[in-house]
Order: sequence, then structure tokens, then C-alpha cells
Amino acid sequence: MSSCTPIVNRRKSSLLLKRIEHPMNLTIRSAHPADLRAILTLLAQDSMNAPEPALPSAQHYRALETIDAHPDHTIAVGTLNDDVVATLQLSFLPGLAFQGAWRAQIEGVRVRSDLRSQGFGAQMIQWAIHQARARGCNLVQLTSNQARTNARRFYERLGFHASHIGMKLYL
Amino acid sequence: MSSCTPIVNRRKSSLLLKRIEHPMNLTIRSAHPADLRAILTLLAQDSMNAPEPALPSAQHYRALETIDAHPDHTIAVGTLNDDVVATLQLSFLPGLAFQGAWRAQIEGVRVRSDLRSQGFGAQMIQWAIHQARARGCNLVQLTSNQARTNARRFYERLGFHASHIGMKLYL
Repeated sequence: MSSCTPIVNRRKSSLLLKRIEHPMNLTIRSAHPADLRAILTLLAQDSMNAPEPALPSAQHYRALETIDAHPDHTIAVGTLNDDVVATLQLSFLPGLAFQGAWRAQIEGVRVRSDLRSQGFGAQMIQWAIHQARARGCNLVQLTSNQARTNARRFYERLGFHASHIGMKLYL
Repeated sequence: MSSCTPIVNRRKSSLLLKRIEHPMNLTIRSAHPADLRAILTLLAQDSMNAPEPALPSAQHYRALETIDAHPDHTIAVGTLNDDVVATLQLSFLPGLAFQGAWRAQIEGVRVRSDLRSQGFGAQMIQWAIHQARARGCNLVQLTSNQARTNARRFYERLGFHASHIGMKLYL
């Protein structure tokens, strides 16, 4: 069982911000404000809800600034030749179970539509799992819309188990 | 669509800590260290994983202290005549989607086994939804183990939709 140091006031580790090069040249790093338009395009390309606007608003910039300043949350981007082609959000959550272990949570996983099935999504998830291990988390969790019929097998190949039902209530 | 003020540095609102009395006398408040033993007993009573120990460890106390100091996370307890009979964890997560809206997440929902089906779980969830609205969140989300066969209907009655698959990877 992993122990986990409380990290409320700890800054993002240098590891999290370090660029990781993959054999297929995907570079994964924390998002910059200049990436926002590309990130929103990825979100809009594959939205299960109301489409996001293609142009970032002041609220989007503020949200990224908030996330960037927060030690427990990161918007990551995957780039190829400096083009943003993938994104995900990685969050770390404290809890009482498992001797007070932290858990990692992945949200908003997207890969550019013309670049799917080439292993880039797997690289993004493996990067997130690596960050979770580095933080001493005992669990990585995510939910996937049931309409994404191939996603379950994708995550199962990466070691995830579809043990839960994901319930949402929009306010 | 709700707008949401960035609240990374904001303390827990007084609302969150205010006791709310329900017709059936369930009182919901943030957990104190003295509640830990009762909380762990609730977790152990109904664990889908390795059972939690009945006695809190130093790690559990540190975890509760961390959570209590964090403006985005709360362990809530529901009490009857000052006995802790229910618990849940409520977390607030920033994001980019929905114009940078925050979402609320519920984890670790438990009601004492001899007090189920009396509406106490619903009171706990409705309390959490109320807190989510007060924080301007656009979404409340949770996952429920598929082995909890009645849970899906319970959450659907409260307005949740079982739209997602919840995937877990233990490290």
C-alpha cells in the first residue's frame, strides 16, 4: 500500500513539468495559455455535450491560470512538432480510504481526430499513470462516456477495470 | 450555464460548515478528528476492497487534517443524536470545459447498515448537491461500484444519469 505525503502546499514537482520524449515524438508537458485555442479545438472536435467554442474566452484563460497555479491539477498537452495534438486533465485527490492515500483522476482525454489509433492516447494515459506513481497515489481513476464504444477496450488494454458506473448530474 | 469564481485560495464557505437540520433529524457537518473511528467503521462495514481498519492510524488523522485544511475537499458526516451514521467526501475540481466551470465530485458514500432505506443517504447527497450549487458548479459526478446493484436506481431517483463507465487502475 502506498503511503502519500500530504502535498496541499507543495508546488507541482519538476517531474510533472519535465518534457518526456516518446519514440513517436509525442512531447507531453503542462499547457500554456498559448495552447488554449488548440485545446478547445480538441474538446470541440469530440464533445458529448454542448460544443465548446473554438476561441478561448476570458473565463477559459482564468480557468487555465487557476489550474496552473494549483499543485493538484494540471492540463497536459501532447505535441508533435510543437503542434498540440492531444490533451488531458490530471488531478490528485486526497481521501481517507487506503490509509489516507491520494488518488489520481484523469478527465478530458482527447487526441486530434486524424491522429487516432496511433498510440498517442496511450502515451498520454501512461504519462498520467507515471505522474500518479510519482505522487505516491494508490489508484488512477477516470470515467468514459458509454457512447465512446471503443474507449472501454482502450483503457482495459492499459490496465484499467470497468468496475464502476459513472453518474452525472448537470446543475 | 453557471459561472464560477476561481476559489483556489478561498477558505471553505461558512455555508459548508453550517449544520443543516433535516426533518428526520440527520445533522450534516464537516468531520472532526473525533469522528474518525466512526467514519472508518462505516467504510469497513461496506468495503468493496480490502477492509479498512476499525482504529484510525496516524496516517488517517493526517489525511483528515489535510482534507480539512483544503478549501476544495470535505469529509462530511451525518449524525443522529450526535452519533455518526453516514459519511461522504465532497470535492470541487476545476476544469476547462463549460467555460472553465468547476465540478463537484462525491466519493465514499456510506450509511450505517441498520439505518439504510430511510432516506439518510438521499439527505447526504442532497446536501452535497446544495454545496455544489453554492459553489457555482455546473456538474455533480460520482461513480458507484457495479456490484452495488441498488445504487444506480438510488442515484437516478436523485437526478443522476448513468451515462459513463467508471474505470479504476490500482497501482
